Amino acid sequence: MSFVLREVRHLLVDLDGVLFVGTTALPGAADFIAWLRQRGIAFRLVTNNATLTPRGYVDKLRVMGIEVEEDEVFTSALATALYLRKQRGTQSAYVIGEEGLFEALRGASVMLESEHPDWVVVGLDRKLTYDKLATGALALQRGARFLGTNPDLSLPADAGLLPGAGAIQATLTATTGIRPTVIGKPEPLMLELAMSQLGGDLSNTAMLGDRLDTDIQGAKALGIPSILVLTGVSSRRDIEQSKATPTLVVEDLAELIEVWTEDGTR
Amino acid sequence: MSFVLREVRHLLVDLDGVLFVGTTALPGAADFIAWLRQRGIAFRLVTNNATLTPRGYVDKLRVMGIEVEEDEVFTSALATALYLRKQRGTQSAYVIGEEGLFEALRGASVMLESEHPDWVVVGLDRKLTYDKLATGALALQRGARFLGTNPDLSLPADAGLLPGAGAIQATLTATTGIRPTVIGKPEPLMLELAMSQLGGDLSNTAMLGDRLDTDIQGAKALGIPSILVLTGVSSRRDIEQSKATPTLVVEDLAELIEVWTEDGTR
Repeated sequence: MSFVLREVRHLLVDLDGVLFVGTTALPGAADFIAWLRQRGIAFRLVTNNATLTPRGYVDKLRVMGIEVEEDEVFTSALATALYLRKQRGTQSAYVIGEEGLFEALRGASVMLESEHPDWVVVGLDRKLTYDKLATGALALQRGARFLGTNPDLSLPADAGLLPGAGAIQATLTATTGIRPTVIGKPEPLMLELAMSQLGGDLSNTAMLGDRLDTDIQGAKALGIPSILVLTGVSSRRDIEQSKATPTLVVEDLAELIEVWTEDGTR
Repeated sequence: MSFVLREVRHLLVDLDGVLFVGTTALPGAADFIAWLRQRGIAFRLVTNNATLTPRGYVDKLRVMGIEVEEDEVFTSALATALYLRKQRGTQSAYVIGEEGLFEALRGASVMLESEHPDWVVVGLDRKLTYDKLATGALALQRGARFLGTNPDLSLPADAGLLPGAGAIQATLTATTGIRPTVIGKPEPLMLELAMSQLGGDLSNTAMLGDRLDTDIQGAKALGIPSILVLTGVSSRRDIEQSKATPTLVVEDLAELIEVWTEDGTR
């Protein structure tokens, strides 16, 4: 093993493909969360999804038998709000998004403004209209800065892939020539903010996820070790073609507990 | 001069920046159309705008004192319909666009179908919604072919640039990874169809326009000579940086008549 699990004191945990798939808990998910608590490893459940609120995730997980607190959930919407609060001169934003994003921005006291906002913030919005795109494009041309909650180009649904936040951002980039700063994975900004919230640093924080192109790439961009669990999108075979290589690969969460326990007691 | 104007029997004429700017006729526009008729030069007024119908353009031009017939107007919507009619196995399309496009497709007997269309056709739609984008993206994933009326990324308005047909197409490309075939300038397809309607060929047809990146580039792509008139977007200075060089440059339509008359009588 190229890093020592027992030195990990803080863990960033992806949700879909790690704790559940769709609306079904993955085997060992509840046990894994309990094991982290017992072991004293602080964690944040991090997700690129900016449409749900932390409360929405707590409820969703509870139905699956997984108990977490609201402040253990960190969405790209919260990361976006936190990022905005740290920027100088941020008072207002024009927002294309859903409730999770609006709630997070309200929590950060960002005022909503369509004519002359400081920022145009774009996440997934399933009520998108041409007028919203036009308003966002014009605000960017008037000098607003451009922020994207997450870069996902598509959103998996039963019928196929639907347009994601990144595809909506692409419309504004095509119109104006301006590219957004993007918060969610594989960009390192959200992961960095989550690590900082935990009080962790590059020496004692790791990322656990199921996707090479977001979770593992994001960990690489931030500079922390990563654990790939094979219960989601990426397979062992995908690793060869990947730009980012996980530090550790496990079949499932049960194997991770086992390996971690062994390592921790050595 | 590197080509002989008197050999031109068919002329493709761009509208905005050539015959008018906004809602105001350019000097000499009505005279130029009359001169073309008197001289026996057949023409098509070609425009990337797929939202207006030919009748809409005839009315718009009449208000400015320029008299043309409906069948002298050739929009990218008409070119799109004509292109679809020529493709094997085209019976249905899912259409994102406005009245000009829907009317043209009705005229070509293309059935509207959202679930399993043969084509997804995308033009400018100022009533765009997320549901339309999702329906288009899913149809493409089920195997529909992807056609764009015109590639314009933005649409100039008083307040600034609004999202254009190309920016809407970009959303579907971002979602699905599929790129459209595009009909309008600077792609050669619309110009080729207009030339063919006139009964012209590469030896006796020319393009007249005000934009290097669309009109002159489109003429180059098709392989016909081009005349740049400096009453619109492109200036003489822009020519040096342009990928396509016009065959002839004139200040305005009056100069074009003058040069053409001299050349024709030599």
